[in-house]
Amino acid sequence: MIDAAKKIEVVEKYMVAVSTNNLDLIREIYADNATVEDPVGTPPKEGIAAILAFYGGFGALGVKLQLSGSVKCAGNAAAFPFTAQIGSKTLDIIDVFEFNNEGKVVSMKAYWSAG
Amino acid sequence: MIDAAKKIEVVEKYMVAVSTNNLDLIREIYADNATVEDPVGTPPKEGIAAILAFYGGFGALGVKLQLSGSVKCAGNAAAFPFTAQIGSKTLDIIDVFEFNNEGKVVSMKAYWSAG
Repeated sequence: MIDAAKKIEVVEKYMVAVSTNNLDLIREIYADNATVEDPVGTPPKEGIAAILAFYGGFGALGVKLQLSGSVKCAGNAAAFPFTAQIGSKTLDIIDVFEFNNEGKVVSMKAYWSAG
Repeated sequence: MIDAAKKIEVVEKYMVAVSTNNLDLIREIYADNATVEDPVGTPPKEGIAAILAFYGGFGALGVKLQLSGSVKCAGNAAAFPFTAQIGSKTLDIIDVFEFNNEGKVVSMKAYWSAG
């Protein structure tokens, strides 16, 4: 199991990766066989190609992410609250990452609603 | 799928149930076949009897829960940040509830670490 410091490092890298639309960094964060369910309740993106296409789509939106509280680490997972600024809109979100033993994210679930 | 307002109501009821150690209220919140993994990475409590025994154990500790941010609703789930005060100690936690169609919690996962 990877330690909390390593998980927090990955979460902070994720904030930067999405905010700068750096797909190389996104590629580093996720395992090849990862799944991304964003938001929870929608069909998951499965595998790195689908995941990169998903994040690639953010490029035009100028999304900026910022942690709004501490990263909670437990077991092979981390849960963290953050805001996503998309133009004039701000979303209040909680993500859960599950990690493999190599420190790559194998599952991401995003809890938020537009309402 | 139950609506966001109903999920938020259950989360607020949960804060009260744990803070007052009201096991009847805990019983109302969870489905018979629910699982509770608290913290994530430890063996889950499976079924309502094990779950009630788990919360019953909090009685002597005088645990007080308080939401520290909004409840994020998505799909059949809700994620929410809160603090747990246990004596002079305060833990910063994120819980994820998954609901069945009757509005009962079928899965609870708690993300926190003592460190």
